[in-house]
Amino acid sequence: MRIVAAAMSFGVAASVSAQMKPEDMIKARQSGYTFMAWNMGKIKAQVVDGSVPFNKDQVLAAANVVAAVANSGMGALYAPGTDKGMGWKETRLKPAFFTEQDEVRKIAMNFIQQANTLQQVAATGDQGAIKAQFGEMGKACKACHDKYRTEE
Amino acid sequence: MRIVAAAMSFGVAASVSAQMKPEDMIKARQSGYTFMAWNMGKIKAQVVDGSVPFNKDQVLAAANVVAAVANSGMGALYAPGTDKGMGWKETRLKPAFFTEQDEVRKIAMNFIQQANTLQQVAATGDQGAIKAQFGEMGKACKACHDKYRTEE
Repeated sequence: MRIVAAAMSFGVAASVSAQMKPEDMIKARQSGYTFMAWNMGKIKAQVVDGSVPFNKDQVLAAANVVAAVANSGMGALYAPGTDKGMGWKETRLKPAFFTEQDEVRKIAMNFIQQANTLQQVAATGDQGAIKAQFGEMGKACKACHDKYRTEE
Repeated sequence: MRIVAAAMSFGVAASVSAQMKPEDMIKARQSGYTFMAWNMGKIKAQVVDGSVPFNKDQVLAAANVVAAVANSGMGALYAPGTDKGMGWKETRLKPAFFTEQDEVRKIAMNFIQQANTLQQVAATGDQGAIKAQFGEMGKACKACHDKYRTEE
């Protein structure tokens, strides 16, 4: 139910941001992904690499960020035409994002679902399960990067 | 309990990000605040300005972002010396941030507390209460801006 609502908002909540400038939309989405990446990095360090001791509260806090960002209706930040333009830096969004909406929606729904699962698994504190779900989360991110983000 | 843990992490979790470059710390915190601002803007539009119809799910999703960002241990992104440097843009952090740690901690704890309350109030769907708590949240943000962020 939460996933359906979020996926719908991914598609139809554009009115919320109708007054935003393209530059601000691009900045906001780059910010969301950058902040999410910082938090994914903390989970990776603690449950995959082991370079930082595992701390359940920190991992859960990081997973809460990932889930909150995923569920925030970022679709509203993808107004037509925003495959070009500067945010913090030039956007890397490919034009195909706007012509393959069914595929985008499928990827977005999976992204939200995996983020919600990561949040649930993080709450258990089970490091093995978190590691496995972190892998699924990474795949969900990569699915979009591979199709709709240009290489840097 | 959650507030204490978060406030502690604000001070002592620097090891988590010990390997980050100052530039990446500044980018990550600018990203967190920018993404939070987008979400605060959605709440404002719906419960303060009334420029967008109230949608409980969207407001709660936005409040979840604010709370998740506030609880993410951003203190780890404030390594000594990062009152200078470029992230997405030049940081606006004042040097006093590093010499007034008791005050910073007080402001940070209040920020976390108000964000958690906003999340709880948003879950009720009570527009009047959300509007009031949005005001408190704004004051908590402003307390830090006034003392530790230079004017643009």
